[in-house]
Amino acid sequence: MKHSLIVTLLTDFGISDIFVGVMKGVILRVNPKLSVIDLTHQIPPQDISAGSFALLGAYRYFPRGTVHVGVVDPGVGTNRRAIAIRITEGYLVGPDNGIFTEILFHSPAIEAVELTESRFFATPNPSKTFHGRDIFASVAAYLACGTNIHKMGPLIHPSTLIQLPLSMPIEEPDGWRGIVRAIDRFGNLITNISGKLMEKQSWEVSLNSKILPIVGTYSCRVPGDEMALIGSHGNLEIALCQGNAQLHFESRVGDDVFLKRKHS
Amino acid sequence: MKHSLIVTLLTDFGISDIFVGVMKGVILRVNPKLSVIDLTHQIPPQDISAGSFALLGAYRYFPRGTVHVGVVDPGVGTNRRAIAIRITEGYLVGPDNGIFTEILFHSPAIEAVELTESRFFATPNPSKTFHGRDIFASVAAYLACGTNIHKMGPLIHPSTLIQLPLSMPIEEPDGWRGIVRAIDRFGNLITNISGKLMEKQSWEVSLNSKILPIVGTYSCRVPGDEMALIGSHGNLEIALCQGNAQLHFESRVGDDVFLKRKHS
Amino acid sequence: MKHSLIVTLLTDFGISDIFVGVMKGVILRVNPKLSVIDLTHQIPPQDISAGSFALLGAYRYFPRGTVHVGVVDPGVGTNRRAIAIRITEGYLVGPDNGIFTEILFHSPAIEAVELTESRFFATPNPSKTFHGRDIFASVAAYLACGTNIHKMGPLIHPSTLIQLPLSMPIEEPDGWRGIVRAIDRFGNLITNISGKLMEKQSWEVSLNSKILPIVGTYSCRVPGDEMALIGSHGNLEIALCQGNAQLHFESRVGDDVFLKRKHS
Repeated sequence: MKHSLIVTLLTDFGISDIFVGVMKGVILRVNPKLSVIDLTHQIPPQDISAGSFALLGAYRYFPRGTVHVGVVDPGVGTNRRAIAIRITEGYLVGPDNGIFTEILFHSPAIEAVELTESRFFATPNPSKTFHGRDIFASVAAYLACGTNIHKMGPLIHPSTLIQLPLSMPIEEPDGWRGIVRAIDRFGNLITNISGKLMEKQSWEVSLNSKILPIVGTYSCRVPGDEMALIGSHGNLEIALCQGNAQLHFESRVGDDVFLKRKHS
Repeated sequence: MKHSLIVTLLTDFGISDIFVGVMKGVILRVNPKLSVIDLTHQIPPQDISAGSFALLGAYRYFPRGTVHVGVVDPGVGTNRRAIAIRITEGYLVGPDNGIFTEILFHSPAIEAVELTESRFFATPNPSKTFHGRDIFASVAAYLACGTNIHKMGPLIHPSTLIQLPLSMPIEEPDGWRGIVRAIDRFGNLITNISGKLMEKQSWEVSLNSKILPIVGTYSCRVPGDEMALIGSHGNLEIALCQGNAQLHFESRVGDDVFLKRKHS
Repeated sequence: MKHSLIVTLLTDFGISDIFVGVMKGVILRVNPKLSVIDLTHQIPPQDISAGSFALLGAYRYFPRGTVHVGVVDPGVGTNRRAIAIRITEGYLVGPDNGIFTEILFHSPAIEAVELTESRFFATPNPSKTFHGRDIFASVAAYLACGTNIHKMGPLIHPSTLIQLPLSMPIEEPDGWRGIVRAIDRFGNLITNISGKLMEKQSWEVSLNSKILPIVGTYSCRVPGDEMALIGSHGNLEIALCQGNAQLHFESRVGDDVFLKRKHS
């Protein structure tokens, strides 16, 4: 794979501290020509599952060879492995704790290594509290510059990578039961129900026992109207006309959403 | 115009989601050498007017040829047009909903096109919910690389572009009535009264019937003192010595501010 | 020193306004090939001391020759000096108000100049409210491109630079009394007690009269357990197992932390 010179960062570090800036310093020390792109640093602290879903939504939009660093890492400093994975589209670098679960479901690991070669680290003696800086940023920078992943440490079998349980909609007699998988800044409820599931059939969407009209866009006539649509993640979303569906429905990640077949 | 290889982004997307990161991925897929600069992503959701004012404050500080993408887009997926505009300083790309109103008042459109040529989009079939990703980011990247705007779609007459009502101070017998046009992170109240209006005459500034001393800098002697000054936007601002004028005056965007001629 | 083409920005401007974006525009106007890295813009308004500590934590991770701009500048527009400083690792640019105190304690100024040469400013007539845009961003860009610091204005003696009082732990008969120097996004309490102080001796850490076990990593067995460890700043930190120590201990920056010798 041609090297991309692009590294993306996704963390739960927030933006009030210097953690993210320091990771970028480490990356630019490897090669100042690298481009570093923030996916988001607002993953809720230690919420590996939210990180996995965010990475899934982003990775496919980047140039081939892009290196995605995902650091939601409550196990930093323990014996959890530090890993790099090659997939068709590029590379994934981070802790072996399931943060790449959803990307790997859609784009399986071609090969994976445990990061043990400290000459690619920011320091030969990594701290026990900040592998984002001491290991992942630096390794990602080398990968983005074309260093072969095999040099980073021993190959490990992809089947040994830690996986989170996948949150998939469950088939029911009259349709599917999904969940609110994420909530965006506008309060839109993004479900785990793929828009593809909804093709070739008419459906009824319901949340909190309310049936929601399925529409094509966020635009709408009556402020406050409830609606369901296929959002930019390609999944079923629940939104409120010029409003905030999260507040309106008092919804949380994990709430049930139902999809029932319509009988014409 | 020489191409700049610079794209700026202004949106109401916030930074908790991956929307902005995904737009950057799309831009780097067009050309990984492009620089992408965030203006802000914290425009209040769907507040086109706030977006217009923020763009006005920023565009003139960038190199010639810079492409500014503005996405506050409640009408995404409807028949509102997607547009690109050439101005003296560079390009503007976004929805045709008035978001460029204030820039265009100061730097009129030289030419404008409707974005219809899908070969410059991120996908031939744009979603109905995220034109920032599927149309604007990609078109902006091509413009920043030097692609001629004429290739992006048919020319449209600048007079047909949607315009927001301009918020200008209103002349009154003894001076001007303006408004609080924006409030910054420090709580400073930025008015729509240009500092140029205030040259060659002495004035009295008042808010909530309180007369405020006009000073030269934010520095001050007594914490909590009220003051008025020409701020970095070049407009009259109202501030509080080492404090937050927004909280102190209980002000909101749209509140009246009065400028009265002083009779010596 | 070889020029780095890298400028970092640390401010108290927040990210809701366009201030930071405008500084980047000014930098790219000097040279569009420059890389601009955000350290953080969430320094509490006008908290120079917090800015100094954040800069200390970040500067050493960047390539040699990097130019660090620090703008927490309540005195903008007064007669406080605008300065640039050369240190071994690179350059520091900002107001002469103590914001570089902690970096300079660890890496003393090699030379310093007062910024008076307006040909390196964004405008020959800087505003009195935004030197970040009108002076510092532009000067930093020139330094990052290799312009000699001597051209920027007259040399000033480093001993004349404004210094904040350094917050150092105080030796006591049975150990040290430090303070909570900063609190990170996870609620970890970062003290001013260097991990180096703690080598070659066993210690007892206490906060609010509670003795805290010293551990090696954030990982832990019982959610809610209190702990002390050497964090990524290299300083003693106080954390809570899978929780927020700031909320748990009701701590603030400045609170006392005690380190007592253990007698075996």
